[in-house]
Amino acid sequence: MGLSGKNIIGNSLSAEGKIIFYAENPANGSKLQPGFHEASEKEIWMAIEKAVTAFQQYRKMSGKQKSDFLDAIADEIISLGDDLIARCMEETGLPEARLKGERGRTVTQLKMFATYLREGSWVEARIDTADPARTPPKTDIRSMLKALGPVGVFGASNFPLAFSVAGGDTTSALAAGCTVVFKAHAAHPGTCEMVGSAIVKAAKKTGMPEGTFSMVQGKSTAVGLAVVRHPRIKAIGFTGSYRGGKALFDVANSRPVPIPVYAEMGSTNPVFILPGAMGERQQAIAKDLAASVTLGVGQFCTNPGLVFYEKEEQTNFVHAFSRSLEDVAPGVMLTAYIQEAYQAGVEKLTKTKGVRTLLQGRTPENGCYAPAYLFQSTGEAFLQDHSLEEEVFGPSTLAVAVDDKAQLLLIANRLGGHLTATLHATERDLQEYADLVAILEQKVGRLILNGYPTGVEVTHAMVHGGPYPATTDSRSTSVGTDAIKRFARPVCYQNFPQSLLPDELKDENPLVLWRMVNGKWEK
Amino acid sequence: MGLSGKNIIGNSLSAEGKIIFYAENPANGSKLQPGFHEASEKEIWMAIEKAVTAFQQYRKMSGKQKSDFLDAIADEIISLGDDLIARCMEETGLPEARLKGERGRTVTQLKMFATYLREGSWVEARIDTADPARTPPKTDIRSMLKALGPVGVFGASNFPLAFSVAGGDTTSALAAGCTVVFKAHAAHPGTCEMVGSAIVKAAKKTGMPEGTFSMVQGKSTAVGLAVVRHPRIKAIGFTGSYRGGKALFDVANSRPVPIPVYAEMGSTNPVFILPGAMGERQQAIAKDLAASVTLGVGQFCTNPGLVFYEKEEQTNFVHAFSRSLEDVAPGVMLTAYIQEAYQAGVEKLTKTKGVRTLLQGRTPENGCYAPAYLFQSTGEAFLQDHSLEEEVFGPSTLAVAVDDKAQLLLIANRLGGHLTATLHATERDLQEYADLVAILEQKVGRLILNGYPTGVEVTHAMVHGGPYPATTDSRSTSVGTDAIKRFARPVCYQNFPQSLLPDELKDENPLVLWRMVNGKWEK
Repeated sequence: MGLSGKNIIGNSLSAEGKIIFYAENPANGSKLQPGFHEASEKEIWMAIEKAVTAFQQYRKMSGKQKSDFLDAIADEIISLGDDLIARCMEETGLPEARLKGERGRTVTQLKMFATYLREGSWVEARIDTADPARTPPKTDIRSMLKALGPVGVFGASNFPLAFSVAGGDTTSALAAGCTVVFKAHAAHPGTCEMVGSAIVKAAKKTGMPEGTFSMVQGKSTAVGLAVVRHPRIKAIGFTGSYRGGKALFDVANSRPVPIPVYAEMGSTNPVFILPGAMGERQQAIAKDLAASVTLGVGQFCTNPGLVFYEKEEQTNFVHAFSRSLEDVAPGVMLTAYIQEAYQAGVEKLTKTKGVRTLLQGRTPENGCYAPAYLFQSTGEAFLQDHSLEEEVFGPSTLAVAVDDKAQLLLIANRLGGHLTATLHATERDLQEYADLVAILEQKVGRLILNGYPTGVEVTHAMVHGGPYPATTDSRSTSVGTDAIKRFARPVCYQNFPQSLLPDELKDENPLVLWRMVNGKWEK
Repeated sequence: MGLSGKNIIGNSLSAEGKIIFYAENPANGSKLQPGFHEASEKEIWMAIEKAVTAFQQYRKMSGKQKSDFLDAIADEIISLGDDLIARCMEETGLPEARLKGERGRTVTQLKMFATYLREGSWVEARIDTADPARTPPKTDIRSMLKALGPVGVFGASNFPLAFSVAGGDTTSALAAGCTVVFKAHAAHPGTCEMVGSAIVKAAKKTGMPEGTFSMVQGKSTAVGLAVVRHPRIKAIGFTGSYRGGKALFDVANSRPVPIPVYAEMGSTNPVFILPGAMGERQQAIAKDLAASVTLGVGQFCTNPGLVFYEKEEQTNFVHAFSRSLEDVAPGVMLTAYIQEAYQAGVEKLTKTKGVRTLLQGRTPENGCYAPAYLFQSTGEAFLQDHSLEEEVFGPSTLAVAVDDKAQLLLIANRLGGHLTATLHATERDLQEYADLVAILEQKVGRLILNGYPTGVEVTHAMVHGGPYPATTDSRSTSVGTDAIKRFARPVCYQNFPQSLLPDELKDENPLVLWRMVNGKWEK
């Protein structure tokens, strides 16, 4: 498939902008053809106007119709074949197996949302029937979730398929009934173009209106900001850095009409190794934790960047951890920018008072390679320096030896919001540290027991979210079917005749949905 | 019951502040005893610290325990007897029947949430069981909603019982498992003290920890702002003016850690009288609409402030509407401030180009009496002057005669967010104006057919919310059981043993909840 380097504005390709940028191969710094045209303000507005028009039709599509669309997107992505994987490898430096796995995850995610739409209960249909005999008479009231409108979605660099063009945000927004204007990530514009074209093809095949999906390219922040500022955009989905997410959040809140921003901004994902588990399985934990720290060159939002355990003299564990990290061959980071930020982050830690550098992995001289780093500090130092809690995006982790249980609880209590927290614990540990679980429940979106935070399962119960600064909206998840709720709001119908009600709310329940009728769940 | 004029800080009364303020009887301007001590910053922080401590216990209370607490609050409010009604009448100028009705609504609301907690499905329990045979093995993942933490709630002046101390926000926050620091409304501090004391009494009787509920008094905005700015407060509930709600929203978003603000800021609640209905029932509509406009002296968030109909020559309707409004005796507004704002609002309309004053009701000379106003304008003028869409809080309404259906749809399309929209329509009207329904669905939280927006039923399906500027969060409702979701967020447990899981997520389903298990609803 030849890449056009153009923006996808509804069903048209457009290249009016004068700024041209190129993807780079992070493994060798080479420039990749073709050049991509950054979207002009006019093109961005055109994409949004098409999304506005399309929304008036798309919002009326049944769950079945939207399911067919999502299934068709999955099929079209598969149809791109190995060309997609090849281009994506060049743009991201990620290995083939990982990208094939990620493609599988993306396709599964689309199909899971399709199935979820066919099941249909996500609309939270509620019916309270009339009671004319009551004084005053009680009228019929029904409500359900409805799509917010056209939304803006930003691609993430670290999952160029699963969190990008046809990733969780786009999929859940389309599933909810929102039209999407997607801001392609400048690090993998070719991958974006291929997947974006697949979505448009699927939209055409399944009869979705033009403008249901558009994609604007751009390297400047101006492109994304124009999307967030546009008065017809009703919500934003974003996965990326704290700086990026917070900037969009502030812009969205300062609009004449503020809109919700679902920014997943990463976190340090603290791991707690409790004494019993440390005694029983320290070698296995050290090995598996090292694999989690270095997975995807540490470029996972759920990368474990903090490891707490009691007593500094756990030298066996620390040595095993260090050895396992050292064994991992250095990988190519996604972009030169990310690699530079990683270098700056580890250098800062190297110079931080109270922090020792236990391991600095080897690095080849060329390309965006990143070595693993292991740092060590104490509970005391951690409590005194808040910056030690900050994420260093990459294969680096900080082992913190705490004095005792009291200090561990104090540290847990002082933590900010994170996506995850992980406990390694025996049954006895869990009894003794019940307080710790209660504290961590208040700090994160997901608690993991005797496992590792990397590898976020796409399921119904998954919560990929968490209190600020992990996200800008702790009430939501960006992975799993519940992500759909971010793009909808309840609408209530009072005293409406059956003919005018949405199918979801009709007496005969034509869609066979689970609904709350007069306070009782029924189907 | 003697009023203390003090703040309720957990189980203690406190009066350290030097600023004293008094309630006023709006009917005659007289000062009511006792003086109330505005909470000092130290008292506010103390209340919040108690809420933080209490939260660690209160969050673990079962649905049953919280139900008993809510039921007990209802009982304690009833126990206050006619003293509560008498004080509330003095402070608000609202008549006895209205306040008794509102007390009934408040008590019913508490009991409805208690029942809802016993049913328990609101936690949205989701279970995805493990599949060790999968490659890679799939781990057990479960999630449910958990309380956000200590929250701040602001009382509204216009419903001194149902939207105040033990109103919808407090009730839904306590139901979710949040502890509450309540900012009493300075217009009815005595009513607040009585109801606040009732809550504390109920908390003691049902074994809730001290600090589950506290209440700070104050006339200065500083008191409320100190609550919103406090780092341990996790969310805000508010019902009141656009200016007030927007100010809290901005402060909350500029905190180092932003928090959600659920501000219901009122709206103009457009009413559309379609041609068939106008032909068939214009006299009845005129009469009932006039009653809705003047209900509670127009001090309802859902007060219909805009009435659209086609063709200016509907003189019969306009005359009947005007006559019906004229027939309503002028009522006492809640406060001198509100009455002044009303006067300013109607004076501004009186002088607005393209607006004719059709009726200015009679007013007694003393007290905060407010006459009904009826204004008339054209579709053309409405489209040209955006300020005509703004709320004038009080018994005033603007009748807008539009040219034709096309102009009506254009106006509907241009509307901002409102709490409600109302249609008066025959079956044939509805067929012809299907487009209008589709547009209004996107503008409001609740659509009413052949009824009136005032009178918000407390049910499961109610949506009292709507797009900005009606509220700061269109994804929520502040009335009805779904209001509980505002004060919770999902927490996910991965690979947890049965013993450590919350009861809501245990295999045997001890609470007999409806849950989504591997994508299917089960009980």
